[in-house]
Amino acid sequence: MISEDHVTLKTGVMMLKIQLRITEINYSLTDIHKITVEDYEQAAKTLLTALFIREKYSRLAYHCFPRTTAKFLRSANNEKWSEEEEVLPEICPVPSEGPYSMEDLPQNLNYSLRMKDGIIYVYDNEDALKQDQPRSLPYPDLETFAIDMSHVLAMIADGPTKTYCHRRLNFLMSKFHLHEMLNEMAELKELKSVPHRDFYNVRKVDTHIHAAACMNQKHLLKFIKDTYKTEADRVVLEKGGKKFTLKQVFDNLKMDPYDLTVDSLDVHAGRQTFHRFDKFNSKYNPVGASELREIYIKSDNYINGEYFARLIKEVAHDLEESKYQHAEPRLSIYGRATEEWDNLSKWFIKQKLHSPNMRWIIQVPRIYDIFRSKKIVPNFAKILENIFLPLFQATINPQKHKETHVFLKHVSVTGFDSVDDESKHSDHIFTYKSPKPEEWTMEENPPYTYYLFHMYANIMVLNNLRKERGLNTFQFRPHCGEAGSITHLVSAFLTADNISHGLNLKKSPVLQYLYYLTQVPIAMSPLSNNSLFLEYSKNPLREFLQKGLCVSLSTDDPLQFHYTKEALMEEYAIAAQLWKLSTCDVCEIARNSVLQSGLSHQEKKHFLGENYLQDGPEGNDIRRTNVAQIRMAYRHETLCNELSFLVDAVKSEAVAEKAS
Amino acid sequence: MISEDHVTLKTGVMMLKIQLRITEINYSLTDIHKITVEDYEQAAKTLLTALFIREKYSRLAYHCFPRTTAKFLRSANNEKWSEEEEVLPEICPVPSEGPYSMEDLPQNLNYSLRMKDGIIYVYDNEDALKQDQPRSLPYPDLETFAIDMSHVLAMIADGPTKTYCHRRLNFLMSKFHLHEMLNEMAELKELKSVPHRDFYNVRKVDTHIHAAACMNQKHLLKFIKDTYKTEADRVVLEKGGKKFTLKQVFDNLKMDPYDLTVDSLDVHAGRQTFHRFDKFNSKYNPVGASELREIYIKSDNYINGEYFARLIKEVAHDLEESKYQHAEPRLSIYGRATEEWDNLSKWFIKQKLHSPNMRWIIQVPRIYDIFRSKKIVPNFAKILENIFLPLFQATINPQKHKETHVFLKHVSVTGFDSVDDESKHSDHIFTYKSPKPEEWTMEENPPYTYYLFHMYANIMVLNNLRKERGLNTFQFRPHCGEAGSITHLVSAFLTADNISHGLNLKKSPVLQYLYYLTQVPIAMSPLSNNSLFLEYSKNPLREFLQKGLCVSLSTDDPLQFHYTKEALMEEYAIAAQLWKLSTCDVCEIARNSVLQSGLSHQEKKHFLGENYLQDGPEGNDIRRTNVAQIRMAYRHETLCNELSFLVDAVKSEAVAEKAS
Repeated sequence: MISEDHVTLKTGVMMLKIQLRITEINYSLTDIHKITVEDYEQAAKTLLTALFIREKYSRLAYHCFPRTTAKFLRSANNEKWSEEEEVLPEICPVPSEGPYSMEDLPQNLNYSLRMKDGIIYVYDNEDALKQDQPRSLPYPDLETFAIDMSHVLAMIADGPTKTYCHRRLNFLMSKFHLHEMLNEMAELKELKSVPHRDFYNVRKVDTHIHAAACMNQKHLLKFIKDTYKTEADRVVLEKGGKKFTLKQVFDNLKMDPYDLTVDSLDVHAGRQTFHRFDKFNSKYNPVGASELREIYIKSDNYINGEYFARLIKEVAHDLEESKYQHAEPRLSIYGRATEEWDNLSKWFIKQKLHSPNMRWIIQVPRIYDIFRSKKIVPNFAKILENIFLPLFQATINPQKHKETHVFLKHVSVTGFDSVDDESKHSDHIFTYKSPKPEEWTMEENPPYTYYLFHMYANIMVLNNLRKERGLNTFQFRPHCGEAGSITHLVSAFLTADNISHGLNLKKSPVLQYLYYLTQVPIAMSPLSNNSLFLEYSKNPLREFLQKGLCVSLSTDDPLQFHYTKEALMEEYAIAAQLWKLSTCDVCEIARNSVLQSGLSHQEKKHFLGENYLQDGPEGNDIRRTNVAQIRMAYRHETLCNELSFLVDAVKSEAVAEKAS
Repeated sequence: MISEDHVTLKTGVMMLKIQLRITEINYSLTDIHKITVEDYEQAAKTLLTALFIREKYSRLAYHCFPRTTAKFLRSANNEKWSEEEEVLPEICPVPSEGPYSMEDLPQNLNYSLRMKDGIIYVYDNEDALKQDQPRSLPYPDLETFAIDMSHVLAMIADGPTKTYCHRRLNFLMSKFHLHEMLNEMAELKELKSVPHRDFYNVRKVDTHIHAAACMNQKHLLKFIKDTYKTEADRVVLEKGGKKFTLKQVFDNLKMDPYDLTVDSLDVHAGRQTFHRFDKFNSKYNPVGASELREIYIKSDNYINGEYFARLIKEVAHDLEESKYQHAEPRLSIYGRATEEWDNLSKWFIKQKLHSPNMRWIIQVPRIYDIFRSKKIVPNFAKILENIFLPLFQATINPQKHKETHVFLKHVSVTGFDSVDDESKHSDHIFTYKSPKPEEWTMEENPPYTYYLFHMYANIMVLNNLRKERGLNTFQFRPHCGEAGSITHLVSAFLTADNISHGLNLKKSPVLQYLYYLTQVPIAMSPLSNNSLFLEYSKNPLREFLQKGLCVSLSTDDPLQFHYTKEALMEEYAIAAQLWKLSTCDVCEIARNSVLQSGLSHQEKKHFLGENYLQDGPEGNDIRRTNVAQIRMAYRHETLCNELSFLVDAVKSEAVAEKAS
C-alpha cells in the first residue's frame, strides 16, 4: 500500500489502523459492500476515468490537482509521478515597487486575436489570422468536452457505481467517527503542545464574499449617516440628466438619515427570503431604494465609486488589524460593454484598493437574457468578447492597457466566479450541437453548463498565454450546487478549480465521492444557505468535513446575513458551537481555506509551512496551522486507501485479462 | 372580557381576533379541549390557587408579580385591584455623591438578632430577645410552606390539570403562529417607522453571567500574557508558607506564558463536558492549574484580588463602550466564615468595581457537604448564619459595617443566586418534619428545596427589615431547572423572583403554564446548555418565547462557551440565525431582559418607557424598546384571555353552587 511510505505513524493512528484491519482485512471489499467483483471493477474503472478527465482539464487551465490523486493515477498507468510534471497556478506576489507601479511593463507582442465559437484564438500576427493558423496553445474542443461530460453524467446514474460510492462514503463517515473516538484526545494534546498558535491566530480566508455586501448592516448604516453628516451638499447622483446632492436624494426618499435604522435600512435577509432568491437580490437596495445602491455600492457612478471604495477600505482595514483574517471579495464584470475592465481597473487603482489581506475575484452574472431583451448585446458571443477580449489585449500589450494589466497582475485578481440563481430552470440542454455563442441570438438564457464551458475555455487559453509570458494565471471558482440541477456539479467537476456552496453534493453519492477523491475545494456558507436554501441543521458541511472533503467556511454576504462586527468569526463560531467542532476541526477548515484561496505560493508557505505542497503530515507545519499531525496522517492514509482500491481493481482486471 | 379595556386595537390584531373568534366562539372551551366541565372547573380552581400562592410569596419578599395576573386574581375574589397595593422591589439608583460615598450613613437601630430554625429573627432590643418577642415582621412558616409546596406538587401530577395545561399551551403555540402569519409584516412596518432605534441600540441585559467567567478565553489569555510581561517578579501567591512570584509560578508549571495559547489554556467547554458538570467545573482552572485560578480569578488572594478586579473592569469598560449592553455578574459568598461579606465588600470598594453597566448578584454554591466533611461548619445553620447575619447587621448598624452597607446599597448588589449541579440526586425529601438547619449535622447535602426555602426565608425577612429602613431590597434569582428533578421548579415557583435556565419546564405542562400565567422571568443560556445539558436544536427557548413566557438571553460563562469578543451579541446572533427570529422577537427578548434585571425603576423607565409598569401596549415605548405595539397587544390580550378562562370557571361554579 502506497500510504505506508508517506505516513508518519503515530500511536493513535496505529490504534486506528489495527482496529480498521479487523474490519477490512478479514473481509474483502466486495464482501463488505455486498457487490459483485464485476460491479466493483466496473465502478472502479468508471471512477478512475472521471479522475483522469478532471486531471486533464485541471492541467490545461493551470488549476490545482492533488498530488496524492495524481500519483495514484500515474501508478494506474504504470507510470511514475514526478514533481516536475506538476502544474501549478501562477500567482504573483506584490512587487517591491508597490502594488500600483506601472514601471517595466512587458513589451507588446503584437499578436492578433479573434473570437471563434465563443472562444478567443491567438495568432502570431495578422497573416496567421488570415490563414487561420492560431498560435500553438491548447484550445478546448467542444466535442471532446461534450463526450467527457456525458461520461460523468452517465456514471452518476449508473447503479453499481452509485452503490459503490454510497457505501464508500458511509464507510468514510464511520471511519472518521472511529478516528474521533480513538484519537480526539491525542489530537488535542498535540495542539496544546504547540506554542503560540491557536484557533485565533491561524490564518483564515473568507473564500467567498461579495464586495457589494462585504460590510455588515451596522457598518453600512453608520457609513451612510457619516457621509450625510459631512457631505450632504455634495452632488452624488445623476439621473435623467438631473444632478442630485445627497440631501436631495434623501429628501426625495422623504427620509432623514439621522433617523435611519437597521430596520428601515432593510438589507438583512429574513424569513421572507427563504427560497426567494429574487427577494434576496432586492435586499441589495438600502431602504429599498436603488439610488442608494447606486451611490454607495457601485464602482461606476457619478462619484466614481468613491463611497464604495471607502467602505471596502474600511473592511480591509479591519482585516489588516485582525492580522489573521483574509478575504476574497467578488467584483462584477457584466460583459455589457468593452470598457468595463478599463473602468474597473482605473477605479481600483485610483482608489488604491489593494490590501495585503484581500485577493480579488471577478464575478460574471449569468444575465445574458436581460441584456439581450434590452438589446444591449446581439448574441451571447458578444458578452464573452466583452469579458475576455480586454484580458487578452492587456496580456499581449500591457503598455497599452496599463491599468488592466496592473489590476490583473499586482493588486491582484486571482480568479473568476460565475454567479446567479441556480434554481432557475433552463429548457435547453447543452450538447455539441447547441448553437454556438455567435448563433445564440434568442432571448432565452443559455444553461449553466454553457456558461461554464465558455468561461472555462477562455480562461484556459488566457492562462496558457499568460503562463508563456510569465504572468499570473487565474482560477475558475464558480458558484455551484447551491440549488438547481445536479448537472451543474458535473460541469464544475470538469471546469472549476474550486466551487462555492456545493450543497447539492448531498444528492449524488457519485459526485460527492469524486469531489472527495479529487479534493475539489468547496467554500461553504451555511448561514447564507440558512437564509436562502437550506436550514442550518440540514447543512452538509459537518458531514463533508468528516468524510474528508476539502471544505472551507465563508460568509457570502455579511450585509445580509451576519449580526456581529466579525462576520467570518461569527461563521466559525456558529459552526463550532452547533456542530461541536473540535479545535482541530476548525483549524483544518481554516487550513483548507488558505489552500483553496488565491494567495500566492510564498504566502501559503508562510501560512501553512514550507512544504505545504507535500502530501500528508510532511506537508503540514503544525506550528503554523494548528492542525494535528495525527489528523493529517488520518486524512492522507484514508485518501490513499480509497484511491488504492480503485487502482487495484483496474490492475487486477488487467492481470486477469492477460492471464485469460 | 377584561382585555377589551386595556388593549389598543390595531388592524393586525383585529384581523387575528376575528380569526380566533371563529375558533373560540363557535365552540366552548370544553368542546375544544375535549374535557368535561367538571374537569375544567377543577383544573381552573387548582391553577388559580397556585397563582394565589405565588402572589403571596412574591408580596412577602418584595418580588415582582405581573399586574395583569394580579388584576384577575382580585376579580376572582370580587375585589378591585389598585396601584397602591402593588408591591415593588426597592432598588436604589447610584447617589450623586458617587457610588463609594460613606457619608450620611443611617443610624444604629440597636436591634438584636437571633437565628432560629435557620431563619434570622429581629428583636427590638435584648429584652425582647430574652422574652422571645420578635419585631413584627413577616416571618415565614415552614408548615405553611410545606402545605403550599404539596398543593403545587399534587397539581403538576393531576390528570385533568395536566390535560388542560397541555392543551392551552398547544393552543398558545398555534395562536402565535397565526399571529405571525397575519401580523409579521405589520410588526416589521411598525419597527421600520421608528426613528433611530433598532436591535443594535435597544438595551440588553446579560441576565445570567458568572464574574469568574465573564471574560472570554482570548481575553484571559491576553491578560495573563500582559501581566507576565510587566510584573513577572511580583509576588502573587502564598502557598504552604512560601511566597511565589509570577515567574516562579510559571516556572513550577514548566511553562512560558509567551507560548501559552487558547488550546493550552484549556478553559473552553468542548464535547468532553456534555453531561459532565464535574469536568466543566474544572475548566475554571487555566491550564488545569488551580494556582492560576487562585491568582487571576479570585477576589481573596495574596494580591487582594487585584488581577480579578482588573479583568472585570476591562469587561465593564467594553460594556460601557457598547453603551447598550449591561450585565449582572455573580460573585460568590460561600457561607464558610463570617468575614466573607466584609472581605468581598472591601475588595469591591477598594478596587472601585462599580460600573453603570453592571449590577451584581451574590451566588451561594450549594456545597454544605464539602464544608461539613472538611469540618469547617458544624451544621447547615452555620452556613446560613455566615451568609445572612452580616447582612442583617449591616442593615441595622450601617455605621459599624460601612463597606458592606455601601456594597449592598450603592454599588450595587441587587439579588441572590443559588448555584450548583442540579443533576446531583438527593435522597432526602424536604418536609416540615425534616431536621431543622441547626439539627442538620450529617454529611449529606440538604436537597435543593431545603436550600431554596431557607435562602428565601432569610431574604424575605431581610427585605422587610430593609424596606422599613428605606433601603434597597434583594431579588432571589436561583439557577433552576437546568437539570435534575422537576420539583426544583416548584420550589422556585414559590420562592424566586425569577430563575436562570428553566429547561425542565419542557417536561411539565402544568409548571410551564403556571410560569406563563405568572410571567416568571427566565434567563436562558442556550449556548451553555448546548455544551452541558441540551443540544441547541432541542433548546425550548423559541417555543417558550412563542407561547409568551417571559424569556431573556444570557451568556452564563463567556470564558467557557463563546468565541467572539461580544459574547452577548454572539448569543443573540446565534439564536436569531438558527431560529430565524424576527427583529421584533429579538427586541422582545431584550425588553424582557431589562424587565427581569435588577436595574432601578429610574433606569427601566429610561430604557423601556415612562409607563413600563403598565399592561400591554400602553406600557411600551416603541421608540425605546423597538417592540411592535401589535406584539404587545397580542401578548397582553392573550394573557388576559387565558386568565379569564380560569376566573370565569371559578365564578360560574360559584354561581352554580348558589343556584343549587
